[in-house]
Amino acid sequence: MKMIIHIFFTLSFVSSISFASVQDFCVADPKGPQSPSGYSCKNPDQVTENDFAFSGLGKAGNTSNIIKAAVTPAFAPAFAGTNGLGVSMARLDLASGGVIPLHTHPGASEVLVVVQGTICAGFISSANKVYLKTLEKGDSMVFPQGLLHFQLNSGKGPALAFVAFGSSSPGLQILSFALFANDLPSELVEATTFLSDAEVKKLKGVLGGTN
Amino acid sequence: MKMIIHIFFTLSFVSSISFASVQDFCVADPKGPQSPSGYSCKNPDQVTENDFAFSGLGKAGNTSNIIKAAVTPAFAPAFAGTNGLGVSMARLDLASGGVIPLHTHPGASEVLVVVQGTICAGFISSANKVYLKTLEKGDSMVFPQGLLHFQLNSGKGPALAFVAFGSSSPGLQILSFALFANDLPSELVEATTFLSDAEVKKLKGVLGGTN
Amino acid sequence: MKMIIHIFFTLSFVSSISFASVQDFCVADPKGPQSPSGYSCKNPDQVTENDFAFSGLGKAGNTSNIIKAAVTPAFAPAFAGTNGLGVSMARLDLASGGVIPLHTHPGASEVLVVVQGTICAGFISSANKVYLKTLEKGDSMVFPQGLLHFQLNSGKGPALAFVAFGSSSPGLQILSFALFANDLPSELVEATTFLSDAEVKKLKGVLGGTN
Amino acid sequence: MKMIIHIFFTLSFVSSISFASVQDFCVADPKGPQSPSGYSCKNPDQVTENDFAFSGLGKAGNTSNIIKAAVTPAFAPAFAGTNGLGVSMARLDLASGGVIPLHTHPGASEVLVVVQGTICAGFISSANKVYLKTLEKGDSMVFPQGLLHFQLNSGKGPALAFVAFGSSSPGLQILSFALFANDLPSELVEATTFLSDAEVKKLKGVLGGTN
Amino acid sequence: MKMIIHIFFTLSFVSSISFASVQDFCVADPKGPQSPSGYSCKNPDQVTENDFAFSGLGKAGNTSNIIKAAVTPAFAPAFAGTNGLGVSMARLDLASGGVIPLHTHPGASEVLVVVQGTICAGFISSANKVYLKTLEKGDSMVFPQGLLHFQLNSGKGPALAFVAFGSSSPGLQILSFALFANDLPSELVEATTFLSDAEVKKLKGVLGGTN
Amino acid sequence: MKMIIHIFFTLSFVSSISFASVQDFCVADPKGPQSPSGYSCKNPDQVTENDFAFSGLGKAGNTSNIIKAAVTPAFAPAFAGTNGLGVSMARLDLASGGVIPLHTHPGASEVLVVVQGTICAGFISSANKVYLKTLEKGDSMVFPQGLLHFQLNSGKGPALAFVAFGSSSPGLQILSFALFANDLPSELVEATTFLSDAEVKKLKGVLGGTN
Repeated sequence: MKMIIHIFFTLSFVSSISFASVQDFCVADPKGPQSPSGYSCKNPDQVTENDFAFSGLGKAGNTSNIIKAAVTPAFAPAFAGTNGLGVSMARLDLASGGVIPLHTHPGASEVLVVVQGTICAGFISSANKVYLKTLEKGDSMVFPQGLLHFQLNSGKGPALAFVAFGSSSPGLQILSFALFANDLPSELVEATTFLSDAEVKKLKGVLGGTN
Repeated sequence: MKMIIHIFFTLSFVSSISFASVQDFCVADPKGPQSPSGYSCKNPDQVTENDFAFSGLGKAGNTSNIIKAAVTPAFAPAFAGTNGLGVSMARLDLASGGVIPLHTHPGASEVLVVVQGTICAGFISSANKVYLKTLEKGDSMVFPQGLLHFQLNSGKGPALAFVAFGSSSPGLQILSFALFANDLPSELVEATTFLSDAEVKKLKGVLGGTN
Repeated sequence: MKMIIHIFFTLSFVSSISFASVQDFCVADPKGPQSPSGYSCKNPDQVTENDFAFSGLGKAGNTSNIIKAAVTPAFAPAFAGTNGLGVSMARLDLASGGVIPLHTHPGASEVLVVVQGTICAGFISSANKVYLKTLEKGDSMVFPQGLLHFQLNSGKGPALAFVAFGSSSPGLQILSFALFANDLPSELVEATTFLSDAEVKKLKGVLGGTN
Repeated sequence: MKMIIHIFFTLSFVSSISFASVQDFCVADPKGPQSPSGYSCKNPDQVTENDFAFSGLGKAGNTSNIIKAAVTPAFAPAFAGTNGLGVSMARLDLASGGVIPLHTHPGASEVLVVVQGTICAGFISSANKVYLKTLEKGDSMVFPQGLLHFQLNSGKGPALAFVAFGSSSPGLQILSFALFANDLPSELVEATTFLSDAEVKKLKGVLGGTN
Repeated sequence: MKMIIHIFFTLSFVSSISFASVQDFCVADPKGPQSPSGYSCKNPDQVTENDFAFSGLGKAGNTSNIIKAAVTPAFAPAFAGTNGLGVSMARLDLASGGVIPLHTHPGASEVLVVVQGTICAGFISSANKVYLKTLEKGDSMVFPQGLLHFQLNSGKGPALAFVAFGSSSPGLQILSFALFANDLPSELVEATTFLSDAEVKKLKGVLGGTN
Repeated sequence: MKMIIHIFFTLSFVSSISFASVQDFCVADPKGPQSPSGYSCKNPDQVTENDFAFSGLGKAGNTSNIIKAAVTPAFAPAFAGTNGLGVSMARLDLASGGVIPLHTHPGASEVLVVVQGTICAGFISSANKVYLKTLEKGDSMVFPQGLLHFQLNSGKGPALAFVAFGSSSPGLQILSFALFANDLPSELVEATTFLSDAEVKKLKGVLGGTN
């Protein structure tokens, strides 16, 4: 019995070192300061199993909108346990005719798997080459980090996909919102895209941009 | 017209630089030498859209086995386009009563989302604390890199899940196979786990180990 | 004298270990296989000082083109010594009225310093917020990785800038070339950007795209 | 003399920039918030040489326990100066018959060097292959990140080894403690390891587990 | 109109997730705690375009000093927007006869481009091999991380260069200041460099060292 | 029996994927091409336990030289199994009066532990501050990446230490060899260090330098 007590003393010392350290996980504490590596870590004593679980991907996003589609992210800090672990997921719902417009993830590559329906997906390389696939249920596709890509429901009914990212904060820049849904002056949009003034102003009108 | 030709000359120079370089992607060429960062890159001229797509996740794994479960990976080099991009996926099929035994991924953290059925999942921290959740359809859970974890069908029918990894080569070490399905001498297994000789030899018999 | 010989034996052993290893540098050998970490390393015995120098930034790019601008990169493998070292540069020449159209670098953040003239530069965040500055000679600006940004000559004469990247292969995706200078079907461009068919076809015509 | 004053002004400006920044070191301040990259940095003005030194490895661990062995770590934050520097060490003491049971380090690879005695060490790969060596004084062995490994005194007298890790927080998950020294329900241990109920309950009894 | 409102609800949810997260940028807040990955992030709501701009590189450094040279850094936190983005710049001014003495950057590789004048630059590898180049206006050179290197005005008039680093905190250790401008005891300098006592004491006198 | 065969089919598929991939380890094949991430990987089928072991640290280095000291590295490719794993070790032998002269490791931080004797060790920060400790048997010290440091036998008998690095290729640049043991012209050494011509030429003579 004495030996057992000894081992507990020795090893619990080891364990408490481990426990106090950051190597296992760093559950996001959104109230603490952020650093380039992510959110501050929640006090390990207050971490529970619920910090590692997330139920948001179970509910279909609302697709009653202009793109007939919705993106439901499971990123840090909403999915607190992923903070700093280099992986996260999201759910894509595309109603019939729905589309996730051209966008990039500045911080991670993405793998998509189709759970329901048919999705036409593609990305464009730095060499301006287009890689395009029609994906049926169970098919997957990878989109390299930072490159423009899109997903479009090319089937008859609704489509559902799950996507994986190699970061807990992959980011999301939707092209037409970056161009037309803010106060970037129309003349700058035009000069830097070759789009016409009429087109830019029309889309700023639709998407809520000014200037 | 001359100006247009000029821009094509200038920018195609830029593009060809980009195209020749490795930053966009590095599709795995399993015949070339490997490096610590992954597989060699396929010649970009021979890369097609098929290198970025994978259909293996669409087919249920064969669960007619001792664990009533199957893991179908979509890692490099099978899913060649993921090589070096820091993300991959896999499919878990669990028949009624099925289980993915305790295992670790030495190279990545994991996020799981349940597509069908009910899964009881858990992981154990360095501090030997257990984080356990029962996940219904649409629920997700994160498993930090390198920690022992498991997934078990705790519902009545079959269960299906997709899992995301923060690496194109996350690795997979299944505990009982590491202990009992090789030639690691029984006495070493016993000395390093506290398991009894009878138990070790019984499981070596079941799982095909020797010594 | 004997001692000196000994130290040379011992330390040249150390040095030869170092020399044979990759930690100091890995000059790009474009003929070898590439890996996710970059180009193969040239045989160290054949590396000379010229592998670490590059004269291409000294010559103004040809700005007689549609954008009245030129980008001259000093990336690997052209600037072979930068391979794997996590830094590179480029030169921007903007004639009067010139513009570097909206673009992203998927693989690195960028710092720009103005050497001559006046440049209006800006980037757009994932939150669609615009960060816009007019930069005079000597002013610098940072553009975070993967975000859309542009540079525009807003002065009267020509402008010159040097830009630094945190990668030897930062990549370059020019938005309007990605959209309009390839065979991405017009209907997909339209569906994923909200641009009109007329606008897309007009720009495909100008920039050489098809479909 | 004026020139010297000038250089001090200019260069001390440079130096103070450097000093204020984080690139040299980030001594752990265990009272500050943690981030995925490690502990907060102690105020550089309060850092002394003692933050970079550690005397804990000089004292033999207490081996009067069930494993006749002890692990003495020199990790952050105990060895505060290692925080974020990507390296740390530990001391292994193995009395005659002692063993460091099967374990993994989720956050780093390990190199061991034997200082005294004879150690039988081994690791198991993802392919379930066993790599086993008997190490005499002066021999070293490397254990790849996240893989199960063990060290066992296979000599007659006590053994001593120092181990190096490629992280200041490598973590330590001891297999039998993860399985049997917590409240993970016996039925889950059994279902996910194939161990018998009797064996699981016996070891839970020995190692202090419940359920 | 209803659809447009819906898309704004859905996508602004996505955007606010992105905005709150750290992936786009992490502007340095020098008052918050530092971590191994850099400075704390300024509250995104208080970030303006001025955080991404820096005017310090526009002004020539004061070269009226012993080295007839000046280094003007644009690192974090002075250039707050670069924090954590893996890139920064600096300006080198070398009066006629000026020199940036032998130094290292522990945290990043460097690329230099000559804007005015003629600079003789070189670095020394781990194998003690010297790589030396005379650089004219427009020439660039790369200096691998952590290796001793120097820049010397070898022309007739003043010289100006911009340098790029692959880190927002590259660090700067100037050899002769490390040796002679502090309280490192002369006997230790001598024993660890083979320099003579007279030489060490002379240079300690010139550069302000003691002991 | 059929079930067992099935599980072997399914799981051996998983294992063979893992086995073929690079995540577990990448034993150095010095004959293959190198990449920025390290040496090519040896064919996994030809890897044995000997690739993970190294006996070179067991033998005292020859200290009959000018520094009365020897460094014996256990780096890749000599210690092939460490390649890409981010950790390595070395052995320091210091005869009475021996010294490891001022040096840097461009690629890794270092932790030293004294096994025998007394060592005076120190490093100098970017801010030119000196951190100095006298280390007895069992004491350890950390030296941050890229900073000048030294170890000196300050006891009466011989000293022995093991050092750990956070890289399999940390590099080693010994200051006085970088300055005086090559063909770097004396006038450049003098201009970039402030050392006198006589001192430089004397040490070039002692250490074998020319020019």
